[in-house]
Amino acid sequence: MSDLPHSQLTHLECSNCGAEYPADQPATTCPGCGKVLLARYDLAAAGRTMTPQSLATRPWSLQRYTEILPIQDPHAAPFLGEGGSPLHAVPRLAEAFGFTTLLVKDEALNPTGSFKARGLAMAVGRARELGSTTVALPSAGNAAAATAAYAARAGLGAVVAMPEDTPAAMLAECLAYGAEVILVKGLIDDCGKVIRAGAAAFGWTDVSTLREPYRAEGKKTMGLEIVEQLGWQVPDAIIYPTGGGTGIVGMWKAFAELEEMGLIGPARPKMIVVQAEGCAPIANAYAAGERHAPRFQDAHTVAPGIRVPAAIADYLILDAVGESRGTAVTVTDEELLDGMRTLARLEGLFASPESGAAVAAARKLREAGFLAPDDRTVIFSTGSGLMHIDLIPINPPVIDPNDPDLVAAITGARAQMRSPVRD
Amino acid sequence: MSDLPHSQLTHLECSNCGAEYPADQPATTCPGCGKVLLARYDLAAAGRTMTPQSLATRPWSLQRYTEILPIQDPHAAPFLGEGGSPLHAVPRLAEAFGFTTLLVKDEALNPTGSFKARGLAMAVGRARELGSTTVALPSAGNAAAATAAYAARAGLGAVVAMPEDTPAAMLAECLAYGAEVILVKGLIDDCGKVIRAGAAAFGWTDVSTLREPYRAEGKKTMGLEIVEQLGWQVPDAIIYPTGGGTGIVGMWKAFAELEEMGLIGPARPKMIVVQAEGCAPIANAYAAGERHAPRFQDAHTVAPGIRVPAAIADYLILDAVGESRGTAVTVTDEELLDGMRTLARLEGLFASPESGAAVAAARKLREAGFLAPDDRTVIFSTGSGLMHIDLIPINPPVIDPNDPDLVAAITGARAQMRSPVRD
Repeated sequence: MSDLPHSQLTHLECSNCGAEYPADQPATTCPGCGKVLLARYDLAAAGRTMTPQSLATRPWSLQRYTEILPIQDPHAAPFLGEGGSPLHAVPRLAEAFGFTTLLVKDEALNPTGSFKARGLAMAVGRARELGSTTVALPSAGNAAAATAAYAARAGLGAVVAMPEDTPAAMLAECLAYGAEVILVKGLIDDCGKVIRAGAAAFGWTDVSTLREPYRAEGKKTMGLEIVEQLGWQVPDAIIYPTGGGTGIVGMWKAFAELEEMGLIGPARPKMIVVQAEGCAPIANAYAAGERHAPRFQDAHTVAPGIRVPAAIADYLILDAVGESRGTAVTVTDEELLDGMRTLARLEGLFASPESGAAVAAARKLREAGFLAPDDRTVIFSTGSGLMHIDLIPINPPVIDPNDPDLVAAITGARAQMRSPVRD
Repeated sequence: MSDLPHSQLTHLECSNCGAEYPADQPATTCPGCGKVLLARYDLAAAGRTMTPQSLATRPWSLQRYTEILPIQDPHAAPFLGEGGSPLHAVPRLAEAFGFTTLLVKDEALNPTGSFKARGLAMAVGRARELGSTTVALPSAGNAAAATAAYAARAGLGAVVAMPEDTPAAMLAECLAYGAEVILVKGLIDDCGKVIRAGAAAFGWTDVSTLREPYRAEGKKTMGLEIVEQLGWQVPDAIIYPTGGGTGIVGMWKAFAELEEMGLIGPARPKMIVVQAEGCAPIANAYAAGERHAPRFQDAHTVAPGIRVPAAIADYLILDAVGESRGTAVTVTDEELLDGMRTLARLEGLFASPESGAAVAAARKLREAGFLAPDDRTVIFSTGSGLMHIDLIPINPPVIDPNDPDLVAAITGARAQMRSPVRD
């Protein structure tokens, strides 16, 4: 037996009806009730090797938490350096919003530029371990890019379906990796319809959000890392831009597993869902006190990652919000764009519009008094702004290096930059 | 005294005339001869705390090597999680090119998406420590984005000058961070002319490549990391896309320091410069046996980071290539685009065109026999492909999710994707 840790995966369990299934064959949703399957582990065994002491010398990557992750052979897995993202203190942002301590979990530093890398590394890696040759999914963009990258790394085919108006950078990335890219007239759930038809016809492995059990395991590592980065403490609040909500589900599961392993106590962060005013199914259901969220009609927002009108795991997300005494809020597109701008200018983090939504929510919740000044609050920056440059006005002045009065030319250019309207 | 390690910076030394200068005040090039100044350390003192054992529990970031870096107060420095990039084994690429072991140092995972983060974190951090309020530089794009980000994080102003045809993503990033962006009719050395005029007139701190001593120190960490990641061994060869060449200069200095500290022996990797056929000043000088490279006329290539017609450190780059028995090669734009495509499709790494040049060079040098099959070779992927989506043709098929025969629609879309010409 190797002295390297290995996965303590034991079985799958339905999050709704509790039915159990073996973990050593391909799985989608619960064959009994159609709801979300979760991976289960021998946590007692895991806790014997996954200790704060042993972790201190492990690399900061998904392999850090091998015991409670599903990959059976980490050395053969299609990893690309995902995970281990920084948890930045952002003192200027904290001061601007009236917090003592604000933290940003910077997921832009993952491969393919977003948090989607974590989930898809696991899902694609596990798909290969279980014999898949082609993976497929519907996506607002980031998940497609991650799927395409991990499929290339794993030597699998990839088919991704995205809304027609997906930002060009995400399409370019998928095409660069050699994925088959299909654009769909509609939203992400329309793309899901296309992928399910294709999966049935062509045998693709569908790695849609929470329609297979392993993406949530990758996302779980965000919760594991935050707790370890805070010295085995949970923060007071986590603000998370929520589309399909795999991150909320994954982190909530992470905290439960860490408690069972004796690594944290019963305290939990307030889990705070942020959605766009133009697409707020979870926030609406939370406000109405419901456990399920009907499809949001006419969904629209400039933040594609949270333009998700229906989430299969609505009940799991709403349970986490409720049990943690968190909340679910909305922000306007203007507010989220302002959040994006503020984070870049004050802290040097050029993040996605979804991240801007989390920044805007931090400000609103502090102003409303839901969060106290000394609530240690983690804002999730879920991805890089580089996929969203269409949201940045670009019109810098141009000067001639051979201008006889360069200093005057520079001065003129600077004045032009400062004027509110440029032509 | 804190038990945290601290910088053992002692003074600056001219790389050409050997004159020494204090390190506690702002510095540019050598006041005596105009050549490049390098930072010097008390390496004996550094070696007492920077040991393989102590490093094993330090975070993988620039702070890992505090002793031999210039930042005096790492806790106050404007860090964003730079450094600690993966050194991926790329077995499919190795097999395709005929190597036993090929490795890719994946610098796309740095803040702002490129290796420039390392140097600018140091230069901007050090500028602030020495009292600067505004930093400025000419850039092909990536260095400008990094400067803008670190200046925002440090609370400094930033002015960046870039060629008129710089990719939009880099401009957007700089503008998002609140930098003043000036476009220049010309190449990067024309931009340098603008910045030097502005620095003289307005007191900006010029952080141009190797015109201040600290960017090279940040780039040095690429060499430190590779050696540590290989278990305190140097690789057999390092293939590096070379514009200003700070990375070559920095890594070469890193190896010398590690040897003086007793952490490695006298062996050195072959340092291999890659340039574009359309802009090859260093490769031409190397071929001619010269130590200085005249300005390359009519420079052109699709890879902006290596469209650098003149390098102030030409003699340092050529010394490293010569002393290491490396070489300097060129690749065509077609070859570097093919390298970019091959890396993405075989290994799931969507990298910059400069990285594609390094990939293409690995193939050429193996084919030519300059590198043997068992030469353990590191290819530098200097940045993300996300800043270069203009190089990727984007024209995926669009389908209607309400098509009565979705499977037929998908089949049609897939056929369209495979056809070489789409309209």
